Amino acid sequence: MPKPVRKEVFPPARVRRYLEPGPIVLVSSHWQGRDNIMTLGWHMIMEFSPSLLACMISRGNHSHRMIRESGECVVNLPTTRLTDEVVGIGNCSGAGTDKFAAFGLTAEPASEVRAPLIGECHASFECRLHDDALVGKYDLFVFEVVKAHVAPSPRHPETLHYTGDGVFMVSGRIISRRPLFRPEML
Amino acid sequence: MPKPVRKEVFPPARVRRYLEPGPIVLVSSHWQGRDNIMTLGWHMIMEFSPSLLACMISRGNHSHRMIRESGECVVNLPTTRLTDEVVGIGNCSGAGTDKFAAFGLTAEPASEVRAPLIGECHASFECRLHDDALVGKYDLFVFEVVKAHVAPSPRHPETLHYTGDGVFMVSGRIISRRPLFRPEML
Repeated sequence: MPKPVRKEVFPPARVRRYLEPGPIVLVSSHWQGRDNIMTLGWHMIMEFSPSLLACMISRGNHSHRMIRESGECVVNLPTTRLTDEVVGIGNCSGAGTDKFAAFGLTAEPASEVRAPLIGECHASFECRLHDDALVGKYDLFVFEVVKAHVAPSPRHPETLHYTGDGVFMVSGRIISRRPLFRPEML
Repeated sequence: MPKPVRKEVFPPARVRRYLEPGPIVLVSSHWQGRDNIMTLGWHMIMEFSPSLLACMISRGNHSHRMIRESGECVVNLPTTRLTDEVVGIGNCSGAGTDKFAAFGLTAEPASEVRAPLIGECHASFECRLHDDALVGKYDLFVFEVVKAHVAPSPRHPETLHYTGDGVFMVSGRIISRRPLFRPEML
């Protein structure tokens, strides 16, 4: 059974480090006294500072209304230790299930939002709704990451990247090409 | 030196298979008689059908105007065979460089757009601008993938996933949890 992971405060302007590689995330929310979690693969960094993150949260998900009404969520980064939880959470609805209880996950208090952090995740990014201009047309939310928490090790956690059809790519080796970058591109 | 890869036509509704895991892509464009290429990490699948893809293309890039004016581009998927080209292309401007020539890449004709495919990439997705509502505010383009071309093998190409600081994560092993999915979630 995975255990909660100790995290440290991390600069919101640097969350691309964890999200730009394209991992599956678990989005936690809180509204009208209830918590929920959804599995999400469709997200994208949009800006460093303010730290903007776009997420496609389909209105078919129970979380859609919770996040739209509360204007908040937490984007949590699971590792392969949580593979079965990621799949299970993505295959049931928060309308009928308390997912924290059902999957044995720990809801920890956030500091800037009412949505909880998921203790067992490697990182948690507290988000506030920044722009809902495309929510009506595309279910596209633009969030600002207002506080970030990251476990100090491992430096490169083993993340899950969804390809559809029930199949995941797991993050592999790390390579640097730093000497080939212009300084202003780093 | 990488060589052009033979590709087959692929259903646009299934491009999430290649893009949802979050790889670095090479975006090719054509405007006023010139081709260009840029390296891009900020993209996101938005819908299966029509096949919608959001891309953040900063106005600081020469490609921004070419794509906005032509309303077209091709999103190409490079593998680790093209790592140095990916870095090189991301660290120079198309304003002063013919990047196809400079990096020894092959511009192949697309079928639905005037922007060229990059022959050496594993897959190429021809895109037409679908919605420019957020281009002015965020440089966010919403494209429709109108035609897709994918090399039939390998089934899981070794892709590059950028973490910032000149460091890439390379795609790793493949795992399936298909039996745990509800049929309608596949």
